[in-house]
Amino acid sequence: AIIVYRLPWTWKCSKLLMKFIHAGLNTIAMILAIVSMVAVFDFHNAKNIPNMYSLHSWIGLAAVIFYSLQLFLGFAVFLLPFAPVHLRAALMPIHVYSGLAIFATVIATALMGITEKLIFALKTPAYSASPPEATLVNCLGLLLVVFGSLILWMASRPHWKRPPAENAKILRPIGATPEGTEVESTMTNSSNADKSDLRSNTEAARKQNMKLDDAGQRSTM
Amino acid sequence: AIIVYRLPWTWKCSKLLMKFIHAGLNTIAMILAIVSMVAVFDFHNAKNIPNMYSLHSWIGLAAVIFYSLQLFLGFAVFLLPFAPVHLRAALMPIHVYSGLAIFATVIATALMGITEKLIFALKTPAYSASPPEATLVNCLGLLLVVFGSLILWMASRPHWKRPPAENAKILRPIGATPEGTEVESTMTNSSNADKSDLRSNTEAARKQNMKLDDAGQRSTM
Repeated sequence: AIIVYRLPWTWKCSKLLMKFIHAGLNTIAMILAIVSMVAVFDFHNAKNIPNMYSLHSWIGLAAVIFYSLQLFLGFAVFLLPFAPVHLRAALMPIHVYSGLAIFATVIATALMGITEKLIFALKTPAYSASPPEATLVNCLGLLLVVFGSLILWMASRPHWKRPPAENAKILRPIGATPEGTEVESTMTNSSNADKSDLRSNTEAARKQNMKLDDAGQRSTM
Repeated sequence: AIIVYRLPWTWKCSKLLMKFIHAGLNTIAMILAIVSMVAVFDFHNAKNIPNMYSLHSWIGLAAVIFYSLQLFLGFAVFLLPFAPVHLRAALMPIHVYSGLAIFATVIATALMGITEKLIFALKTPAYSASPPEATLVNCLGLLLVVFGSLILWMASRPHWKRPPAENAKILRPIGATPEGTEVESTMTNSSNADKSDLRSNTEAARKQNMKLDDAGQRSTM
């Protein structure tokens, strides 16, 4: 769900379709998270293990709570058509950062869970004797870190982001760039606040150019 | 060390001094990491506990190895005066990303270490009985996550980055912006490639306007 805006084969899709894919994948992930939480509580209750005592459970629950908040706010602000553009622009860097931070926290929680499980489940031989299971699961944990690093790398590369909408390229006057669209489609980029300054300047310049253009006064520069 | 370029009171310092502070703090952290690794191996050997069997140790060792690589490459490329500017510009996004990724990995390693320690050290009452120590240390773990999130937020905000060098503002011709310097000083920002596009376009549009302006043809729009 995180890198759905970063895959070149999706750049032909409409922005709304992309949003639906992003929201849909995250909704599926949320449902799976709830199912697995119910399973954990059932498992603990059936085995008479206390609930919510470990750091793994605390951080995991915090991540799920923030994730549901993120999903709800994302739906209300970015998918429903009621939020004004300036609110979307202001919340987008926070939405992007929260999403990545929750993702990293979930990976850390999984690593803590793996550690707990290996300590509790491996008894003869113990985890400290490095039986094959321990080595295998340690490798899976390392792969989880590699996976997380790759996703965060992809999500944070500016040149992997969705390019500006096609129609802007067709409609723009020569000598002006599709700033409005560019910024709109890069709202997912954290450097938004910065660019908006630049944009208002460019925007003003472009409007001016367009007017001059209409009057046949375009500079050939 | 990560946020040394993000603190407004340091923006008056020279860039070289900033680099020395950044490199110095990281060198101190590296020395502390080596001291603590030696302490861990000594502790394990003294207590006849096997070394390097846990996921915590694997990921921790990987983080320390990548950290020493990062320190060595950072020193060779960014501090010594031999690397050409294009190499620095190409490596800077990787340097920034690796630094943040290593930081996040170290936090995850600490959380796994805390989990292990609580499980092994708390016996009567056990960790699962939630004695006060367990609650206290869980809270410390949560604070570690909050700390990590804040540092990564500060490090990834573009408007918190070091502004362009002062001399560029003085020396630049009227109507031109300090692009070279801007790019140099924002090399730490991952959205750099992006902005330079927007900027050069804006620049072109603005120059065009100014030319028209000089000719007394400005639109009153």
